Amino acid sequence: MSDKTATLDPEVITEDHEALDEDYVLTPAFVEKVADAADEGDGMRLRSLLEDLHPADVADLMGYLNPELRAVIMLWLPPELLADTLPELDDGIREEVLERVPHLTLAEALQELDSDDAAAVVEDLEDDQREKVLSAMPAGDRAAIESSLGYEEDSAGRLMQREVMAAPAFWNVGDTIDHIRRQSDDLPELFFDIYVVDPMNKPVGGLPISQLLRAPRAAKLTDLMEPINEIAVDQDQEEVAYIFEKYHLISAPVIDAGGRLVGQITVDDIVNIIQEENREDILRLAGVSDEDRGSSVFEIVRGRVPWLTINLATAALGASVIGLFEHTIEKIVALAVLMPIVSAIGGNAGTQALTVTVRALATRELNSANAGRTFWRELFVGLANGLILAPLIGVVAGFWFRDEDWRIGLVIGAAMVLNLLVAASIGVLTPLTLSKLKFDPAVSSAVFVTATTDFFGFLIFLGLATIVLL
Amino acid sequence: MSDKTATLDPEVITEDHEALDEDYVLTPAFVEKVADAADEGDGMRLRSLLEDLHPADVADLMGYLNPELRAVIMLWLPPELLADTLPELDDGIREEVLERVPHLTLAEALQELDSDDAAAVVEDLEDDQREKVLSAMPAGDRAAIESSLGYEEDSAGRLMQREVMAAPAFWNVGDTIDHIRRQSDDLPELFFDIYVVDPMNKPVGGLPISQLLRAPRAAKLTDLMEPINEIAVDQDQEEVAYIFEKYHLISAPVIDAGGRLVGQITVDDIVNIIQEENREDILRLAGVSDEDRGSSVFEIVRGRVPWLTINLATAALGASVIGLFEHTIEKIVALAVLMPIVSAIGGNAGTQALTVTVRALATRELNSANAGRTFWRELFVGLANGLILAPLIGVVAGFWFRDEDWRIGLVIGAAMVLNLLVAASIGVLTPLTLSKLKFDPAVSSAVFVTATTDFFGFLIFLGLATIVLL
Repeated sequence: MSDKTATLDPEVITEDHEALDEDYVLTPAFVEKVADAADEGDGMRLRSLLEDLHPADVADLMGYLNPELRAVIMLWLPPELLADTLPELDDGIREEVLERVPHLTLAEALQELDSDDAAAVVEDLEDDQREKVLSAMPAGDRAAIESSLGYEEDSAGRLMQREVMAAPAFWNVGDTIDHIRRQSDDLPELFFDIYVVDPMNKPVGGLPISQLLRAPRAAKLTDLMEPINEIAVDQDQEEVAYIFEKYHLISAPVIDAGGRLVGQITVDDIVNIIQEENREDILRLAGVSDEDRGSSVFEIVRGRVPWLTINLATAALGASVIGLFEHTIEKIVALAVLMPIVSAIGGNAGTQALTVTVRALATRELNSANAGRTFWRELFVGLANGLILAPLIGVVAGFWFRDEDWRIGLVIGAAMVLNLLVAASIGVLTPLTLSKLKFDPAVSSAVFVTATTDFFGFLIFLGLATIVLL
Repeated sequence: MSDKTATLDPEVITEDHEALDEDYVLTPAFVEKVADAADEGDGMRLRSLLEDLHPADVADLMGYLNPELRAVIMLWLPPELLADTLPELDDGIREEVLERVPHLTLAEALQELDSDDAAAVVEDLEDDQREKVLSAMPAGDRAAIESSLGYEEDSAGRLMQREVMAAPAFWNVGDTIDHIRRQSDDLPELFFDIYVVDPMNKPVGGLPISQLLRAPRAAKLTDLMEPINEIAVDQDQEEVAYIFEKYHLISAPVIDAGGRLVGQITVDDIVNIIQEENREDILRLAGVSDEDRGSSVFEIVRGRVPWLTINLATAALGASVIGLFEHTIEKIVALAVLMPIVSAIGGNAGTQALTVTVRALATRELNSANAGRTFWRELFVGLANGLILAPLIGVVAGFWFRDEDWRIGLVIGAAMVLNLLVAASIGVLTPLTLSKLKFDPAVSSAVFVTATTDFFGFLIFLGLATIVLL
């Protein structure tokens, strides 16, 4: 036992964790040490630095290094650690790394992984390399990976592992435990629930293994089991994540079109998907498409410029509205000074309504049952915002330009109220409409909302001014 | 067995799921049925509609109804379902509902829950009600809840449940299974890992129960166990979520300052926290503070107006810059038409850089080890964006105002490049600085970034125009 309690020895803990700071982030000093060793090609030193790291930390480390150093490190990683690290890498880095790993090394490494993780790696291989790697693998592993890749991307079939703990409905607790002890090798590396199946291999219930452990050996599974949430093999991963989150699932059985058990999905994969979906939403709202820390300047620009270009076009549209009122502005330059205020507040209020709506759609708090109420509520919020902000800006603007025409305060106040109503409507209706049309409500919503609030902001403000002040 | 396989009968499935559509969302028809029954005070009908729902669906249902109907429904929920529903409710709705549930009913319901869930409910009670409810509970349950509430909000101590499966290091597999069968009642309702402890109750390792099940009864725990990630009781929940996500944990032991095992945290609670943190980030970036579908118009406005008011002030600051150039605009009205384009593109490019940075900070992909590189990369992206967009807008503007002065195209192009450099710098530096100062990088970043790009956009464009064109 003494060698085990040694993990509590403070000195050992320090050594264990020197790579990570107290926030579980790699320290710059450690990253530099690794970079130096890789730079000098000191393989033994690299291996001793890396061998105790968690695969997630190795993957993190790769993110801080340049491609040359990454290549050196992959060469020196112990095979098992290499296998476990591959699924953890950022997409861009994984693709780059995979091109450099010899296919026999890769074939060997992939056999260490569960079928879902192995398939996720193989998916990223170039066609010819994929062929080579797969043909170097045992037939069983190869078939598992190929079957996984046969399901659509982002479907439950891709996400699931084929290894699963199923028990016939006539077994009791003792039968089940004995089976697990005997068949240890064919079972998933980790499992949390036992699925009870009928003779057709269709799930009829499930029980957490902590319930199995508590029960006497003679207890029948059918007396212990509870209803389970089945996942269809073609269900979208976003849908799967929603079910896991809503019902607090740890694992769930996956069934084919015939209702037969074909695999299981576990919550650790779901956590990744939730983060991925959130990341997509937050970035899409800001007009950024896929990019990660491994992306080059060129890739980033290619992802962001299209949105900025669309924005340029919509901004020009807004400008053309101003162009209609050149004559008015020439007479009252104060309007040119004040008009960006109207459009800025409209844009921000619209973005608030939009973000709340996109988020509520993503979490399914908003749907056809309460869409109408949400719209009216946002409209009232827009009105209230307007009635609070309009006097503020009205008084300031009236006072500011009192020498020219104090009524400019009235005009900007009225324009503000109207534009905030526009902002509220468009902020709710844009994502609702996109979602109804089965588009992602986050994509391009923001550009449309701010373009609309700019357009109407300028039109209402300058229009009112032309009528009232000229 | 026939009654069990009946769950596969298509008719039964339809009946089971009629409350939910194929997306696991409550159908408007079902919501209406419940609302009608509540409206008519038909308790028996309500109970038969609700008793088979999952607590998460009952909570969802409450979100669609008004406070009067919610009150009726809470009255008719079976006690266990009431208990399980409380932790699932939105904060605002839970507070409202708790005010209406008699304290004896509540005291009884809370005893059904694990200590972390019970504490989360008690936390929301008014002081006098909390006193009444706690004093109506058995001493043991009461002590568990009070001890949980003794930890800081959002800490691991609040999140953990005190029930935990610990095994002395000298036990073997058989001892452990026998203990679980005997002590069934004192153990957590669900558990996934067994923590091996030394005589001081300090964790020395852990093993997933699927490993326990596979091993022969004679195997020693110390030979099976693996190193574990310990969570300190005062650790922030965001930190805890990061560790779970990074290392794919299902459960983790919580230790006090002395290193002793005091509880466990399970991944289902972590999924909620991840969603909550993501929600906060995405809403804060848009200038929306806490609100949910239960919030009144007044609460929503109170949360959003402060940000719009700050925005009004910064927009006025931008306007005052324009005011400096009234003389220039009077001579060349085209400048008033074009200036919103410069500020709009700057604002959007700044928001892109900002969002990417906030997200990278949240996932800890960005930290002191690569902050410098990130800054320079964004600056290059800003320059590249500028060099692509400037000719576009330059040619359009030059042609548009060719009768006045074609050089206006040169001015706007140059202003665009410069303002995109400002946008890139400020978009990265604002969240980095806030994070360095231990503030949330998402809060108020957006307002500061767009205010800065507006300010410099107007200043650079109108300033250049004054120098070049007048």
